[in-house]
Amino acid sequence: MPTVRLFDRDHPLTLASGAMIDQVDVAYTTHGTLNAAGDNAIFVCHALTGDSHVAGVDENGRRGWWDTMVGPGRPLDTDRYFVICPNLLGGCRGTTGPSCARADGGEAWGLDFPLLQMADLVRVHRALLDHLGVDRLHAAVGGSLGGMQVLEWTLTHPGQIDRAVIIAASSRLTAQNIAFSAVAREAILRDPGFAGGRYAERGTTPATGLSIARMMAHITYLSEEAMSEKFGRRFQSPDRAGGGFGVDFAVESYLAHQAKSFLTRFDAMSYLYLTRVMDYFDPFAGPAAAAGAVDAGTDFLIMSFDSDWRFDSGHSLRIVRELEQAGAPVTFREIPSPWGHDSFLLELPAYQSTVAAFLDSPARARAVAA
Amino acid sequence: MPTVRLFDRDHPLTLASGAMIDQVDVAYTTHGTLNAAGDNAIFVCHALTGDSHVAGVDENGRRGWWDTMVGPGRPLDTDRYFVICPNLLGGCRGTTGPSCARADGGEAWGLDFPLLQMADLVRVHRALLDHLGVDRLHAAVGGSLGGMQVLEWTLTHPGQIDRAVIIAASSRLTAQNIAFSAVAREAILRDPGFAGGRYAERGTTPATGLSIARMMAHITYLSEEAMSEKFGRRFQSPDRAGGGFGVDFAVESYLAHQAKSFLTRFDAMSYLYLTRVMDYFDPFAGPAAAAGAVDAGTDFLIMSFDSDWRFDSGHSLRIVRELEQAGAPVTFREIPSPWGHDSFLLELPAYQSTVAAFLDSPARARAVAA
Repeated sequence: MPTVRLFDRDHPLTLASGAMIDQVDVAYTTHGTLNAAGDNAIFVCHALTGDSHVAGVDENGRRGWWDTMVGPGRPLDTDRYFVICPNLLGGCRGTTGPSCARADGGEAWGLDFPLLQMADLVRVHRALLDHLGVDRLHAAVGGSLGGMQVLEWTLTHPGQIDRAVIIAASSRLTAQNIAFSAVAREAILRDPGFAGGRYAERGTTPATGLSIARMMAHITYLSEEAMSEKFGRRFQSPDRAGGGFGVDFAVESYLAHQAKSFLTRFDAMSYLYLTRVMDYFDPFAGPAAAAGAVDAGTDFLIMSFDSDWRFDSGHSLRIVRELEQAGAPVTFREIPSPWGHDSFLLELPAYQSTVAAFLDSPARARAVAA
Repeated sequence: MPTVRLFDRDHPLTLASGAMIDQVDVAYTTHGTLNAAGDNAIFVCHALTGDSHVAGVDENGRRGWWDTMVGPGRPLDTDRYFVICPNLLGGCRGTTGPSCARADGGEAWGLDFPLLQMADLVRVHRALLDHLGVDRLHAAVGGSLGGMQVLEWTLTHPGQIDRAVIIAASSRLTAQNIAFSAVAREAILRDPGFAGGRYAERGTTPATGLSIARMMAHITYLSEEAMSEKFGRRFQSPDRAGGGFGVDFAVESYLAHQAKSFLTRFDAMSYLYLTRVMDYFDPFAGPAAAAGAVDAGTDFLIMSFDSDWRFDSGHSLRIVRELEQAGAPVTFREIPSPWGHDSFLLELPAYQSTVAAFLDSPARARAVAA
C-alpha cells in the first residue's frame, strides 16, 4: 500500500495542543477512480484497531476489514466512487505513531509521543486529501472511533464533506466507556514487558497487557445475546470440562484466539494513545458547536445497532439531537442486529441498503446551488 | 473471630470430585443467640470476595459487609435470630483455601489445591452447622455467589432450610458472565508475580493481575447509569485534564482505589478457584433437580435488581421458573435500584422490608405439620 510523507522537519505537524511531530508518514489505500469533476471521493475513517486495508485481498491473502461495504457493487461502490482509506495518526499500521522513529534514523518516540486529540487525526487526513488533489468529499464514512473522527471533521471544517455517515459512534464517552478503556490501559502499562514504552528497544513485549485489553474489549463488542448464541456454555472440547483454569469453555477459546491474532497486528502504545483520544472527545461541549457544519450543507446519516452496548443508540441519539438543535439535516437509523457493536463490520442488508441509498442521495449544498 | 478445624487427616474432606483436602479450618462469626428450640438460626452465605465479618465493627474498626442487613432491628434481626456467617472453602479470609498449608506445617497448596464445586462449599458449611449443634435453619440467605450456594444447598439437602433467600444470583452463567471471569483469571495467571501460584514462597505478588481483575469486576458491579451519576466525565482534579495515561477522570480514580484496597484483603488464587465454581454451576441441568427441595418444604424468595447487568433479572427468573415447574412456593421480587449488582450490599427500603417480611413469615413445612 502507498505511504506518503506529509509532514517533515521543514513542515512539521503542529497538533491542537501546540506540540509538534517532526515527521509524519501516512499509509493509505484507494479503490476506484477519481472522476474528472473530482466529486466522487469517499473517505473512510477506520475504528480503533483498524487500518488502511479496507477492501480487497492484500499480499497476505487477507480480506479488508470492510470488504462487505467497499467494492464493486457494494454500498461504497468502487465502480462509481473513489474510496480513500488511510491509517490513523497514532496508529501502527503504516502511519506515524508512538512506536515510530522521531525522524529518519532517530530513536522511537515511545511515551514522549505527544498526546493526541481528535482534531489531530483530522488534520493529518485533510493533508492526505490535499496530497491526493481532492478538495471536497462526496462523503466521509466511519464506524466507532472512525465515526467520531467524521463528526469532528464536519464540525471543524465545514464545507468539505457533503455527506457524513457516522455509525455506532459517540460524541461523549460515558464513565463506563472510559472505565473499560482505563482498565485496558492499566493492563498494558503495568505489564513488565511494556518497559515504559521502550519494549522494542529492550526486546520485550507487553503481550499480556495487550491480550487482556483485547479480550476485555471483545466482550464489549458483542452483545450478551450474541455471545450466548455463538458460544452459550459449550465446552471447547468435551474432555476439557473441569480441566482447570485454561480454555474449558468455547467462549474462552474465542477470547484467546482474538488476543493471539491481535498481537500480530497491533501495537500497545497505539492502543493507549487512541483510546485516550476517544475518552477526551466531547465536540458539543462548547456553545453552538454544530452551527458551522449546518451552514455548510453537510447531510448526516447517524446509525446505531439496537444490541450495541459499547456505544448504544443513546450515544447516536445525542449526536442527532445536537445536530438537529443546530438545524442540520439528520437521518437517524437504528438497525436491528443481534451482534452488538461488531455489527458495523458485518454484512446486514438493512444496514448496507441504508448506507447505499444515503450515498446515492443528492447533496443538499449542491441542490441549493442548482 | 472464631476458627474451627472441621476436617483433618483422620477425617479429611472428600470433595464431590473425589479429591481430598486433608485439613479444613473454617472462620465464622455469629450474632445473636440460638434459642432453646434451636429454630431461629439464619445462615448467611457471602459473595465472591466477601468474608465472615458480616456485621458490627471488627478490631480494625471496619464495619461488616452487610451491616445494613444484619443487626438489632435489621431484617436479619440479631435480637431475634442467631445469625451465622462463615468464610467460604477456597477463600482467603480464615477458611482453608489454595494459599493455605496442606496440613500443619506443610507447604502451601498452590495450584495443587483441588478444583471445587458448589456442592463442596455447601458440604463444609453443613459441617459447621453440625459443629454449632444446629439441625435446621430458619433461613439461608445469600447474594450473588452466596445466593448460588443457598440454591445448591436447598436442592441437594432438602429438609434443612425452611426459607431460602437468593439475591442477585444465577443458576447458570451466560457466556458473557464466563468471559468476564475468564479475562480476570487470565490477568492473574499471566502476571509474572503469580509464579505459578507460588508467590508467597517466592516473595512476589500478582498485584497487577488481581488489580486488573478487580477493576474490571467493578465495572460490571455498577450499572452504566450509576457510573454516570457517580462520576460522569468529571476530572479527578481540574489540573489533571490532559495529563496522560494516569488517573485523569474520577471514574479512573474510583477503579484505582477499589483495586488498591482489594489487594490488602484478597488472594489471587481464591479468585481463580471461586470464579471457576461459578462458571460450572448449573444445578438445574439434570432432570427434575428441584423436586427434592419442593417436597421438603423450603419457601423461596428470589430477588433481583432492575439495573443489575452482571446477573440481570433474567437469571433470577430462570431460577423462579425452574422451581415453579417443580411445584415449589416461590416469591419473586425485582427491586428498583439504579446501583446495579452492587445493590444487594446497599440499604434500600423496599429490598430490606421484603427480606424482613419473608423471614417473618410462617414456614410452610411447620404450617403443614401444625
